[in-house]
Amino acid sequence: MAMSLDGFIARADGNLDWLMKQKTDGEDHGYDNFMASVDGLIMGRGSFEKVLSFDEWPYQKPVVVMSRTLRVADLPDGLRNTVTLSTLEPEELMQELGRKGWQRAYVDGGKIIQSFLRAELIADITVTHIPILIGDGLPLFGQLDRDIDLEHLETRSFASGLVSSKYRVQQTG
Amino acid sequence: MAMSLDGFIARADGNLDWLMKQKTDGEDHGYDNFMASVDGLIMGRGSFEKVLSFDEWPYQKPVVVMSRTLRVADLPDGLRNTVTLSTLEPEELMQELGRKGWQRAYVDGGKIIQSFLRAELIADITVTHIPILIGDGLPLFGQLDRDIDLEHLETRSFASGLVSSKYRVQQTG
Repeated sequence: MAMSLDGFIARADGNLDWLMKQKTDGEDHGYDNFMASVDGLIMGRGSFEKVLSFDEWPYQKPVVVMSRTLRVADLPDGLRNTVTLSTLEPEELMQELGRKGWQRAYVDGGKIIQSFLRAELIADITVTHIPILIGDGLPLFGQLDRDIDLEHLETRSFASGLVSSKYRVQQTG
Repeated sequence: MAMSLDGFIARADGNLDWLMKQKTDGEDHGYDNFMASVDGLIMGRGSFEKVLSFDEWPYQKPVVVMSRTLRVADLPDGLRNTVTLSTLEPEELMQELGRKGWQRAYVDGGKIIQSFLRAELIADITVTHIPILIGDGLPLFGQLDRDIDLEHLETRSFASGLVSSKYRVQQTG
Protein backbone atom coordinates (compact mmCIF):
# COMPACT_ATOMS: atom_id res chain seq x y z
CA MET A 1 0.00 0.00 0.00
CA ALA A 2 1.19 3.51 -0.77
CA MET A 3 0.47 6.09 1.90
CA SER A 4 1.05 9.83 2.26
CA LEU A 5 3.37 10.64 5.16
CA ASP A 6 0.31 11.83 7.09
CA GLY A 7 -1.28 8.39 6.75
CA PHE A 8 -3.76 8.49 3.86
CA ILE A 9 -4.06 6.04 0.97
CA ALA A 10 -6.23 8.37 -1.14
CA ARG A 11 -7.98 11.72 -0.89
CA ALA A 12 -11.46 11.59 0.64
CA ASP A 13 -12.96 11.22 -2.88
CA GLY A 14 -10.53 8.42 -3.81
CA ASN A 15 -8.27 10.68 -5.90
CA LEU A 16 -4.67 9.48 -6.31
CA ASP A 17 -3.25 12.54 -8.13
CA TRP A 18 -0.73 13.16 -5.29
CA LEU A 19 0.58 9.61 -5.79
CA MET A 20 0.60 9.65 -9.58
CA LYS A 21 2.68 12.86 -9.72
CA GLN A 22 5.64 11.24 -7.92
CA LYS A 23 8.70 10.96 -10.15
CA THR A 24 10.00 7.43 -9.66
CA ASP A 25 11.23 6.54 -13.17
CA GLY A 26 13.78 3.76 -13.20
CA GLU A 27 13.31 2.80 -9.56
CA ASP A 28 12.57 -0.81 -8.65
CA HIS A 29 10.34 -0.66 -5.58
CA GLY A 30 10.08 -4.45 -5.53
CA TYR A 31 6.62 -4.54 -7.09
CA ASP A 32 7.52 -7.01 -9.84
CA ASN A 33 9.21 -9.36 -7.36
CA PHE A 34 6.22 -9.10 -5.06
CA MET A 35 3.74 -9.80 -7.87
CA ALA A 36 5.85 -12.79 -8.93
CA SER A 37 5.52 -14.15 -5.37
CA VAL A 38 1.70 -14.30 -5.36
CA ASP A 39 -0.73 -16.59 -7.14
CA GLY A 40 -3.25 -13.82 -7.69
CA LEU A 41 -5.02 -10.78 -6.29
CA ILE A 42 -8.08 -10.37 -4.10
CA MET A 43 -9.85 -7.03 -3.96
CA GLY A 44 -13.21 -5.44 -3.25
CA ARG A 45 -15.57 -3.78 -5.65
CA GLY A 46 -14.21 -0.29 -4.82
CA SER A 47 -10.62 -1.16 -5.72
CA PHE A 48 -11.77 -3.08 -8.80
CA GLU A 49 -13.74 -0.12 -10.12
CA LYS A 50 -10.76 2.17 -9.43
CA VAL A 51 -8.46 -0.14 -11.42
CA LEU A 52 -11.04 -0.38 -14.23
CA SER A 53 -10.80 3.42 -14.57
CA PHE A 54 -7.09 3.16 -15.45
CA ASP A 55 -6.12 3.31 -19.14
CA GLU A 56 -4.92 -0.26 -19.09
CA TRP A 57 -5.67 -3.35 -16.98
CA PRO A 58 -2.45 -3.61 -14.94
CA TYR A 59 -2.47 -7.24 -13.76
CA GLN A 60 -1.14 -10.39 -15.41
CA LYS A 61 -2.31 -12.62 -12.55
CA PRO A 62 -5.86 -13.83 -11.82
CA VAL A 63 -8.00 -11.42 -9.82
CA VAL A 64 -10.84 -12.32 -7.44
CA VAL A 65 -13.30 -9.49 -6.74
CA MET A 66 -15.26 -9.95 -3.51
CA SER A 67 -18.70 -8.46 -4.15
CA ARG A 68 -22.30 -9.33 -3.45
CA THR A 69 -23.62 -6.98 -6.10
CA LEU A 70 -21.42 -7.35 -9.19
CA ARG A 71 -22.55 -9.90 -11.81
CA VAL A 72 -20.42 -11.58 -14.49
CA ALA A 73 -22.40 -9.56 -17.03
CA ASP A 74 -20.97 -6.40 -15.41
CA LEU A 75 -17.39 -7.41 -16.28
CA PRO A 76 -15.75 -5.99 -19.41
CA ASP A 77 -15.50 -8.73 -22.05
CA GLY A 78 -11.71 -8.71 -22.03
CA LEU A 79 -11.57 -9.53 -18.32
CA ARG A 80 -13.89 -12.55 -18.10
CA ASN A 81 -10.96 -15.00 -18.25
CA THR A 82 -8.87 -13.24 -15.64
CA VAL A 83 -11.41 -11.82 -13.17
CA THR A 84 -13.62 -14.01 -10.95
CA LEU A 85 -16.40 -12.77 -8.68
CA SER A 86 -16.88 -14.25 -5.21
CA THR A 87 -19.41 -13.83 -2.40
CA LEU A 88 -17.49 -16.10 0.01
CA GLU A 89 -16.16 -14.97 3.39
CA PRO A 90 -12.34 -14.57 3.59
CA GLU A 91 -11.63 -17.97 5.21
CA GLU A 92 -13.89 -19.85 2.79
CA LEU A 93 -12.42 -17.98 -0.15
CA MET A 94 -8.84 -18.80 0.87
CA GLN A 95 -9.83 -22.46 1.31
CA GLU A 96 -11.37 -22.52 -2.14
CA LEU A 97 -8.34 -20.81 -3.69
CA GLY A 98 -6.09 -23.20 -1.78
CA ARG A 99 -7.87 -26.13 -3.46
CA LYS A 100 -7.05 -24.46 -6.79
CA GLY A 101 -3.37 -24.35 -5.80
CA TRP A 102 -3.07 -20.76 -4.52
CA GLN A 103 -0.59 -20.38 -1.65
CA ARG A 104 -0.31 -16.63 -1.37
CA ALA A 105 -2.52 -13.79 -2.51
CA TYR A 106 -2.11 -10.03 -2.79
CA VAL A 107 -5.04 -8.63 -0.81
CA ASP A 108 -5.83 -5.02 -1.75
CA GLY A 109 -8.29 -2.39 -0.57
CA GLY A 110 -9.02 -1.06 2.90
CA LYS A 111 -12.22 -2.93 3.79
CA ILE A 112 -11.05 -6.22 2.33
CA ILE A 113 -7.69 -6.08 4.10
CA GLN A 114 -9.53 -5.25 7.32
CA SER A 115 -11.68 -8.40 7.05
CA PHE A 116 -8.64 -10.54 6.18
CA LEU A 117 -6.70 -9.09 9.13
CA ARG A 118 -9.60 -9.95 11.43
CA ALA A 119 -9.57 -13.53 10.11
CA GLU A 120 -5.77 -13.63 10.65
CA LEU A 121 -5.18 -14.31 6.98
CA ILE A 122 -2.65 -11.51 6.37
CA ALA A 123 0.96 -12.71 6.75
CA ASP A 124 2.81 -9.54 5.83
CA ILE A 125 2.21 -5.89 4.98
CA THR A 126 4.38 -3.56 2.90
CA VAL A 127 3.72 0.16 3.27
CA THR A 128 5.42 2.68 1.00
CA HIS A 129 5.46 6.22 2.37
CA ILE A 130 5.16 8.96 -0.22
CA PRO A 131 6.97 12.24 0.61
CA ILE A 132 3.88 14.46 0.77
CA LEU A 133 1.32 15.68 3.30
CA ILE A 134 -2.24 15.79 1.93
CA GLY A 135 -4.02 16.70 5.17
CA ASP A 136 -7.13 14.57 4.82
CA GLY A 137 -8.28 11.40 3.09
CA LEU A 138 -9.02 7.72 3.38
CA PRO A 139 -7.24 5.80 6.14
CA LEU A 140 -5.30 2.59 5.50
CA PHE A 141 -7.92 0.15 6.81
CA GLY A 142 -10.49 1.82 9.02
CA GLN A 143 -11.32 0.54 12.48
CA LEU A 144 -9.94 -2.74 13.74
CA ASP A 145 -11.46 -4.77 16.56
CA ARG A 146 -8.05 -4.97 18.28
CA ASP A 147 -4.50 -3.65 17.91
CA ILE A 148 -2.30 -5.61 15.54
CA ASP A 149 1.37 -5.84 16.45
CA LEU A 150 3.86 -5.98 13.61
CA GLU A 151 7.42 -7.19 13.30
CA HIS A 152 9.55 -4.90 11.16
CA LEU A 153 11.37 -6.93 8.50
CA GLU A 154 13.08 -4.36 6.28
CA THR A 155 12.99 -0.76 5.09
CA ARG A 156 14.35 0.62 1.84
CA SER A 157 14.43 4.24 0.71
CA PHE A 158 14.70 5.53 -2.82
CA ALA A 159 16.09 8.60 -4.60
CA SER A 160 12.50 9.71 -5.32
CA GLY A 161 11.91 9.94 -1.56
CA LEU A 162 9.71 6.86 -1.34
CA VAL A 163 10.36 4.80 1.80
CA SER A 164 9.12 1.23 1.74
CA SER A 165 8.83 -0.88 4.91
CA LYS A 166 7.86 -4.52 5.16
CA TYR A 167 6.28 -6.00 8.30
CA ARG A 168 5.19 -9.46 9.43
CA VAL A 169 1.80 -9.55 11.15
CA GLN A 170 1.90 -11.01 14.66
CA GLN A 171 -1.02 -13.44 14.84
CA THR A 172 -2.70 -13.96 18.20
CA GLY A 173 -2.72 -17.70 17.80
CA MET B 1 6.28 12.74 15.87
CA ALA B 2 5.63 9.06 16.56
CA MET B 3 2.90 7.47 14.44
CA SER B 4 1.32 4.04 14.25
CA LEU B 5 1.90 2.39 10.87
CA ASP B 6 -1.73 3.15 10.01
CA GLY B 7 -1.11 6.85 10.52
CA PHE B 8 -2.30 7.84 14.00
CA ILE B 9 -0.40 9.82 16.64
CA ALA B 10 -2.75 8.80 19.50
CA ARG B 11 -5.98 6.89 20.05
CA ALA B 12 -9.14 8.96 19.58
CA ASP B 13 -9.13 9.74 23.35
CA GLY B 14 -5.44 10.77 23.30
CA ASN B 15 -4.21 7.50 24.83
CA LEU B 16 -0.57 6.59 24.05
CA ASP B 17 -0.51 3.09 25.64
CA TRP B 18 0.35 1.51 22.25
CA LEU B 19 3.39 3.78 22.04
CA MET B 20 4.49 3.40 25.65
CA LYS B 21 4.53 -0.41 25.44
CA GLN B 22 7.21 -0.44 22.72
CA LYS B 23 10.47 -2.00 23.92
CA THR B 24 13.21 0.35 22.79
CA ASP B 25 15.69 0.17 25.68
CA GLY B 26 19.19 1.16 24.73
CA GLU B 27 18.23 2.56 21.32
CA ASP B 28 19.27 6.08 20.38
CA HIS B 29 16.52 7.40 18.11
CA GLY B 30 18.31 10.73 17.83
CA TYR B 31 16.04 12.50 20.31
CA ASP B 32 18.87 13.88 22.45
CA ASN B 33 20.73 15.18 19.40
CA PHE B 34 17.53 16.74 18.10
CA MET B 35 16.76 18.40 21.43
CA ALA B 36 20.31 19.73 21.57
CA SER B 37 19.71 21.36 18.15
CA VAL B 38 16.74 23.50 19.25
CA ASP B 39 16.53 26.56 21.46
CA GLY B 40 13.22 25.49 22.96
CA LEU B 41 9.79 23.99 22.41
CA ILE B 42 6.50 25.44 21.25
CA MET B 43 3.29 23.54 21.92
CA GLY B 44 -0.45 24.01 22.37
CA ARG B 45 -2.51 23.64 25.49
CA GLY B 46 -3.49 20.05 24.62
CA SER B 47 0.11 18.82 24.35
CA PHE B 48 1.08 20.81 27.44
CA GLU B 49 -1.64 19.22 29.55
CA LYS B 50 -0.69 15.77 28.22
CA VAL B 51 2.95 16.35 29.22
CA LEU B 52 1.85 17.68 32.64
CA SER B 53 0.14 14.31 33.23
CA PHE B 54 3.49 12.49 32.97
CA ASP B 55 5.28 11.56 36.22
CA GLU B 56 8.11 13.96 35.50
CA TRP B 57 8.51 17.15 33.43
CA PRO B 58 10.62 15.83 30.52
CA TYR B 59 12.17 19.01 29.10
CA GLN B 60 15.36 20.86 29.99
CA LYS B 61 14.77 23.59 27.43
CA PRO B 62 12.36 26.55 27.65
CA VAL B 63 8.79 25.80 26.59
CA VAL B 64 6.29 28.25 25.07
CA VAL B 65 2.64 27.21 25.38
CA MET B 66 0.36 28.89 22.83
CA SER B 67 -2.96 29.39 24.57
CA ARG B 68 -5.60 32.09 24.88
CA THR B 69 -7.13 30.56 28.00
CA LEU B 70 -4.25 29.46 30.27
CA ARG B 71 -3.05 32.00 32.88
CA VAL B 72 0.32 32.08 34.64
CA ALA B 73 -1.58 31.22 37.82
CA ASP B 74 -2.57 27.91 36.14
CA LEU B 75 1.08 26.80 35.82
CA PRO B 76 2.54 24.49 38.45
CA ASP B 77 4.98 26.45 40.68
CA GLY B 78 7.98 24.42 39.54
CA LEU B 79 7.45 25.38 35.90
CA ARG B 80 7.10 29.16 36.09
CA ASN B 81 10.77 29.69 35.17
CA THR B 82 10.77 27.30 32.22
CA VAL B 83 7.27 27.65 30.75
CA THR B 84 6.00 30.85 29.08
CA LEU B 85 2.47 31.47 27.83
CA SER B 86 1.84 33.24 24.54
CA THR B 87 -1.22 34.45 22.63
CA LEU B 88 0.78 35.56 19.58
CA GLU B 89 0.26 34.18 16.09
CA PRO B 90 3.04 31.84 14.80
CA GLU B 91 4.92 34.50 12.77
CA GLU B 92 4.81 37.06 15.55
CA LEU B 93 5.87 34.47 18.09
CA MET B 94 8.86 33.38 16.00
CA GLN B 95 9.85 37.04 15.55
CA GLU B 96 9.68 37.59 19.28
CA LEU B 97 11.65 34.43 20.01
CA GLY B 98 14.16 35.44 17.34
CA ARG B 99 14.74 38.70 19.20
CA LYS B 100 15.51 36.57 22.27
CA GLY B 101 18.10 34.62 20.28
CA TRP B 102 16.08 31.55 19.28
CA GLN B 103 17.03 30.17 15.86
CA ARG B 104 15.19 26.86 15.84
CA ALA B 105 12.25 25.52 17.82
CA TYR B 106 10.70 22.10 18.28
CA VAL B 107 7.03 22.61 17.37
CA ASP B 108 4.80 19.90 18.83
CA GLY B 109 1.09 19.06 18.66
CA GLY B 110 -1.20 18.61 15.66
CA LYS B 111 -3.05 21.95 15.58
CA ILE B 112 0.05 23.99 16.35
CA ILE B 113 2.14 22.26 13.69
CA GLN B 114 -0.70 22.80 11.24
CA SER B 115 -0.69 26.57 11.86
CA PHE B 116 3.12 26.72 11.60
CA LEU B 117 3.03 24.71 8.35
CA ARG B 118 0.50 27.17 6.93
CA ALA B 119 2.79 30.06 7.88
CA GLU B 120 5.72 28.21 6.22
CA LEU B 121 7.63 28.16 9.50
CA ILE B 122 8.36 24.41 9.59
CA ALA B 123 11.76 23.56 8.07
CA ASP B 124 11.85 19.82 8.68
CA ILE B 125 9.69 16.98 9.98
CA THR B 126 10.81 13.70 11.51
CA VAL B 127 8.22 10.92 11.68
CA THR B 128 8.92 7.71 13.55
CA HIS B 129 6.69 4.80 12.53
CA ILE B 130 5.78 2.41 15.33
CA PRO B 131 5.26 -1.25 14.28
CA ILE B 132 1.59 -1.49 15.23
CA LEU B 133 -1.84 -0.96 13.67
CA ILE B 134 -4.35 0.69 16.02
CA GLY B 135 -7.21 1.13 13.53
CA ASP B 136 -8.46 4.53 14.61
CA GLY B 137 -7.22 7.65 16.33
CA LEU B 138 -5.97 11.19 15.94
CA PRO B 139 -4.34 12.14 12.64
CA LEU B 140 -0.91 13.78 12.41
CA PHE B 141 -2.11 17.33 11.71
CA GLY B 142 -5.67 17.43 10.51
CA GLN B 143 -6.69 19.26 7.35
CA LEU B 144 -4.24 21.42 5.46
CA ASP B 145 -5.21 24.16 3.03
CA ARG B 146 -2.87 22.71 0.39
CA ASP B 147 -0.64 19.69 -0.19
CA ILE B 148 2.85 20.00 1.26
CA ASP B 149 5.64 18.34 -0.70
CA LEU B 150 8.53 16.92 1.26
CA GLU B 151 12.11 16.07 0.42
CA HIS B 152 13.24 12.82 2.02
CA LEU B 153 16.53 13.35 3.85
CA GLU B 154 17.20 10.09 5.68
CA THR B 155 15.59 6.98 7.16
CA ARG B 156 16.90 4.84 9.98
CA SER B 157 15.39 1.63 11.32
CA PHE B 158 15.97 0.09 14.74
CA ALA B 159 15.98 -3.40 16.28
CA SER B 160 12.76 -2.51 18.10
CA GLY B 161 11.04 -2.09 14.74
CA LEU B 162 10.85 1.70 14.89
CA VAL B 163 11.54 3.37 11.54
CA SER B 164 12.43 7.05 11.66
CA SER B 165 12.37 9.25 8.55
CA LYS B 166 13.44 12.86 8.28
CA TYR B 167 12.03 15.22 5.62
CA ARG B 168 12.65 18.80 4.56
CA VAL B 169 9.49 20.83 3.91
CA GLN B 170 9.31 22.31 0.41
CA GLN B 171 8.19 25.92 0.87
CA THR B 172 6.12 27.49 -1.87
CA GLY B 173 7.61 30.91 -1.82
